[in-house]
Parts: sequence; structure tokens; C-alpha cells
Amino acid sequence: MASAWLLPEHIADVLPSQARRIEELRRELLDMARTYGCELVMPPMLEHLDSLLSGTGQALDLKTFKLVDQLSGRSLGLRADTTPQVARIDAHLLNRAGVTRLCYCGPVLHTRAEGLTATREPLQFGVEIYGHAGLEADLEAQELAIDAMQRAGLKHLVLDLGDARLVRGLLGEHALDEDRLNALVAAMAAKDAAGVAAFAKELPADVITALQALLGLYGGVEVLALARERLPAHPLVTAALDDLDWLIRHLQAAYPDVRIGVDLADLPGFGYYSGARFALYAQGCSDAVVRGGRYDEVGAVFGRRRPAVGFSLDLKTLAGLLPATSLRAAVRAPWGEDPDLRAAVRRLRERGETVVCVLPGHEQENDEFECDRELAQAGGQWVLRSL
Amino acid sequence: MASAWLLPEHIADVLPSQARRIEELRRELLDMARTYGCELVMPPMLEHLDSLLSGTGQALDLKTFKLVDQLSGRSLGLRADTTPQVARIDAHLLNRAGVTRLCYCGPVLHTRAEGLTATREPLQFGVEIYGHAGLEADLEAQELAIDAMQRAGLKHLVLDLGDARLVRGLLGEHALDEDRLNALVAAMAAKDAAGVAAFAKELPADVITALQALLGLYGGVEVLALARERLPAHPLVTAALDDLDWLIRHLQAAYPDVRIGVDLADLPGFGYYSGARFALYAQGCSDAVVRGGRYDEVGAVFGRRRPAVGFSLDLKTLAGLLPATSLRAAVRAPWGEDPDLRAAVRRLRERGETVVCVLPGHEQENDEFECDRELAQAGGQWVLRSL
Repeated sequence: MASAWLLPEHIADVLPSQARRIEELRRELLDMARTYGCELVMPPMLEHLDSLLSGTGQALDLKTFKLVDQLSGRSLGLRADTTPQVARIDAHLLNRAGVTRLCYCGPVLHTRAEGLTATREPLQFGVEIYGHAGLEADLEAQELAIDAMQRAGLKHLVLDLGDARLVRGLLGEHALDEDRLNALVAAMAAKDAAGVAAFAKELPADVITALQALLGLYGGVEVLALARERLPAHPLVTAALDDLDWLIRHLQAAYPDVRIGVDLADLPGFGYYSGARFALYAQGCSDAVVRGGRYDEVGAVFGRRRPAVGFSLDLKTLAGLLPATSLRAAVRAPWGEDPDLRAAVRRLRERGETVVCVLPGHEQENDEFECDRELAQAGGQWVLRSL
Repeated sequence: MASAWLLPEHIADVLPSQARRIEELRRELLDMARTYGCELVMPPMLEHLDSLLSGTGQALDLKTFKLVDQLSGRSLGLRADTTPQVARIDAHLLNRAGVTRLCYCGPVLHTRAEGLTATREPLQFGVEIYGHAGLEADLEAQELAIDAMQRAGLKHLVLDLGDARLVRGLLGEHALDEDRLNALVAAMAAKDAAGVAAFAKELPADVITALQALLGLYGGVEVLALARERLPAHPLVTAALDDLDWLIRHLQAAYPDVRIGVDLADLPGFGYYSGARFALYAQGCSDAVVRGGRYDEVGAVFGRRRPAVGFSLDLKTLAGLLPATSLRAAVRAPWGEDPDLRAAVRRLRERGETVVCVLPGHEQENDEFECDRELAQAGGQWVLRSL
């Protein structure tokens, strides 16, 4: 039976000290989203595979666990990302004409881990704003993400901006099939100029040159001015740079303490994002804690092409970046049948105190809770006494 | 694409009004468990099938979705019940000598729904107390369950008691194989005296008579006295009745407003429970909201035979029994670049207020939030004004 307690790779129990931290973060983030007017939704863990993967591309397909529904014989998927589900809810269930702000928090499951130390069961928290095509929605999503990370206690945040329209604009009418486009995006993400040059047969020289120029366009906000010099003035390129300018100006005013970076060749989720995208980094972390952006097409497959912008993060990763929270101080109480004792315990619990009753025979055990007080009898009354 | 938004049978999205209720209940119940000294754990959704189903019996096996792990080629199961996982955590990860109180809250998935209107994705909340064999732990679990349901707002609670040792005691040395035992338990649960009589070839007449007597032993607390008259004085039977007596006496003193019932033939989870079991019913509901009891053997398969008592419930079911909570009042604010406006919005949000910014062009939309105030400029200042 030795194997009965070994967990699958990249799957772990969350023990009390970490679970407490995650639960606190969960509440803080959901409460923060509420103050922005986000309504909570809870999509299911399981859906028909065709619904879950509609329009989401191959990457999510490979990450999705599949199984067969005994009730219908149909293929089901375990959600690997909640965003398409929330788009479905916005499109069909709520079906509102105006702006809709939604948030969610729950587990997602991945067939493969995203890194050596990554979990296959992230606890995904996210926010989506539907129905507004203007930059004000992008800004609101970014502000909410920054506020949430600051509230969580992350210091020295870096917000990294990019835009999915740049590569589309540079490619212009030169369409690549999906495989080749993925290969190009991979080469760009690796900042592999030779890899980009290998597209010389399919793309004209000036497009190759512009794509290669994009590779060098990362750094501080000064990169935007360089981009205007070095990139051709395609309407999508100009729109993207103008939008990034606007966002940076507003973010700098609102968050002078957040460093803003630009990485125009960073393309995670290309094919998914349709406009500005952003990532939030904490000091000392090479991976982004939050990723988000505009993805106006995400609801189209559900019959409703709505502007959409949002972000998501893994609460387990976030909790790992923060010090564990200690248990709140607790009260130790003896077990006993005295109605006065039981009433005293009840009153303390109603006030939110943790009261650990020492069950008979366990008086010598060390409690896991930090009991700093005890309930003791003095002068015929049950009173709190420091330990 | 019509099918892209149809969900599998017995699977549903939880929309905002209900999600809000569930989230509130989740917090209330976890906070209540904390005041009793329960520590939160988060076991994974997925485990190796042999670990997940160790010693849990056929019923859970049939309810468990199975899939194959690409990383190892091994069979995985999606948890259909969190209790065995928490027993594994107590036995192996925490491995404490003394009393350990744990709680959890997360989704479980079932291949089959438990009723016509039941969900296949309950949100399971539960509490487990390990390490104390005495009735004080049973009582504490029952009190916590009652406190939690009263806090949640359920009225006119009925606590129903039984004991898994009665049938074992009545069977005595007359062992039945698992299939026949299940058939007997099913006949008892259906209060089917003829079905019990059908065991005449396998069981002596006095055992059949005693089992049939058990069928009539349900009702108020007076049933215990009847049971002492009608049932043979097997040590297990006497111990069970003595324990129920003790529990009833203490519960009546602590909760004069909770009606206590006894149903000695009610055997859900027989083979799992090892001692007193209980169920909590709300007025007007035929199904129990909470089920729990003592199951001392649950950790044995993980190499650690610890006394254990606990309970669990489905937060979605519980939320369905309660009125939906209305949205908190919100503040409507215009969108604007004025730093004073933005500072005013930020201050309100920091105070926990929901501030819905009306994005440009959406001024005529009806907001889903009940905005009872607006942020408006008056005398060069941004002030709150009633709507």
C-alpha cells in the first residue's frame, strides 16, 4: 500500500499554513473585484469537449484532460482555462447588451505542467470585462490587476505591455497557415532573428526586416518612440502604438510606484489576444504572476462577438511568492459539561475567536494552534487568562 | 454551433446571484470551523485511482470519473468525495499523535447524479476530527454542524441519529459476503420487512426478527427506550444505544430548539461508518443537508488506524435552500481623467464600496448593480449623492 499516498507528478496537497494563505488571498481578490463592480460566476469543472475547446486553439486542447460521460456517451473535458467558459456565460446566459464585469475563482487542471515546478492544478482567479471596445476597459483591467497584487502584498511590481496587433500589422496581407504562424510566433518569442529570416520564402524582405526589428523592441517606455521610427506605418501598427502610449500615460499617473516595461515581441497567447496585452511581474520572479489583455473574438464561437478584456492568475503561485500567514491566536478550553463553560466557549466563538477544546485524555498534547489564552475557572466564573 | 453552449446533464453554471450566496456560505462555514480549531486543507482534484479508492467500497468507485495520466500512463480518478483524501493527509502528511481537526471546501465530481435534480458537481464542505475515540468528538462534530447550519440561516433543524454498530451487533458472528450485506442494507433502508425475511436461509430466525424490529425503530428520542426492550443485548447494540443516549442528552441541553430524531434502520454509508452517525434536515426538505458520523477505519488503508469523526455537505444544495442575497448597494461614478475623481473612486473602493465606473458611451445602460448613490461634482469636489 506504499503507493496509496503518493500523488501524481505536479499534483500536491495544500497543507494548513499554505491553505490559509490561499484562502485569504482568494477572499481579498474576490472582494477587490467586487469593489470594481465584478459579479462572481462559477462555471463547471466539466463540459462537453466541443464547447470547452471552441475556438481556443491547439495549445488548450493538448492541456485538457478528456473523459467520456456515462450518461450521454459524449466526450467531456476538464477545464484547463476558465476564460472561454466565462465568455460562454456572457454570450448566452447573461446575454446583456451593456458592459458586464465578471470574476471567477476555482481549480483548473492541466495534462502537462507548464514548467518544472509548476502545478497541474492551478487555482485560477480571473476577471473579464465585456462590452466595451475602448481603452478605458483595458485600463480598468490593468488597474484592478495592479490593485489586487498590491493588496496581496507583492512589492516592486513591473507591468509589461505589448500588443497582438503588431505582428498582424507587419504581416499585412501575407497570410501564413496556422502551423507556420505558430512557428513564426515561437521564433519571435525566442528572439531568434535567424528563425525569422527562415521565412524568407514566404514573406517579402521588408516584412522580415520589420519582424526582426520587433525583436529588439523591448525595455522601458522609451521603446515606443523607437518603434515608431523602426516599424512601417501600417494602420494596425500605428493603432497599437497609440493605444500603448495612452495606457502608459494613464498608468504612470495612477501608479507612479509601478515600473512599466514594453516588450513588443513577447507574444504569449498570440491568436487569442486581439489588442493590448499585459503581464505583471513581481521582484525576483522570471515568470509573470498575472497575464491579461484584450481578446475581442473569444465569444464569437458562442455566437456573440463582444469586446472583451481580462486577466487571470494562479492563486497557488501567488501564495508561493508571499510569506505564510501565521495562525491567529487561539484560546484553549477544557472539555466539560458545565453549562457555564459551554456558554463561555460559545460566546468566544461567536466573537470569531478560535477556541480549541481539549478533549478528555489529550491534556498533555501540544496543540497546533498558538493558544495564547485559556478559559479557566476563577471565583466561580469562566474567565480568559493569558498563557 | 448550437451545441457549444449546452452543458452535460446535471452540470450547470452558477450565475451571479447564486454564486454570491454560495461564496458567503463558504466563508461563514470555513470561519465557523476555524472557531472550533479546524485547520483548512486543500487536497487535489485528481489522484491515482488506487489511492483515491483505497478502502472506500464499490459505491464510490462507480461514482468516480477515471482518466489516464499522460505523464505516467497510470489511471487517475477525479475525487467524488474528499473524506478519504483528508484521512490520507492526516495519516501521512501531518502524522500527528494528538487530536487533529481539519476542514476543506472544494468541488467533487460524480459520474452519476444522486437524484433527479441533483448536481454532478457538488461543492463539498466538510470537517474531520481525528485522534479521539470518545463521544466528545462526536458531540463536537454534531455541534459544529448545527452551529454552521444555524449561522447559514436554516430554521427548524432536525438532527437524526443512528448507529452503524446496531446491524453489526444484530448480525453477530453471522457474516454475509459484501453483495449480500449490501442487499440486506438496501432492504433495511427501504424498510422492507419481506426483503429482510428473504435472508432466512442465511440468518437464524432470531436475527431476522431483530433486524425486522429495527425497521420500526424510528421517531423521537423515545425510540431508544423501545430499542432496549426489543433488541437483544449484544455488546455492540448496548454500546450503540448507550452512546446515542449520551449524545441526545448533551444535544438537548445545548440546542433546545433543535428537534432530535432517531432512525435506527437508516443506514446510508453503511460499511463506512463505524459508530454513531447523524444527519441534519431542514424544514420541508426530504433529503438531509448534512451527513456525518464516526468512521474510525477510514485511515487504516493509509497505514494509520485513527479514530475519526466528521461530516460533509454540498454548498450548492445548502444555497438552494436559502433566499438569494441581494447585491450590496453600489456607487455609480462617471469615467474621467480628473485625478480628483480617480482618487475619490479609489478611496471608496478601499472602504469596501462597489464603485461601478460608467465607461464612455454606456451612460444609458441599466447597470446590474443596485446603484443607490453616485459620485458627482459639486463645488469643485467629488461627493456622494443619493440616486
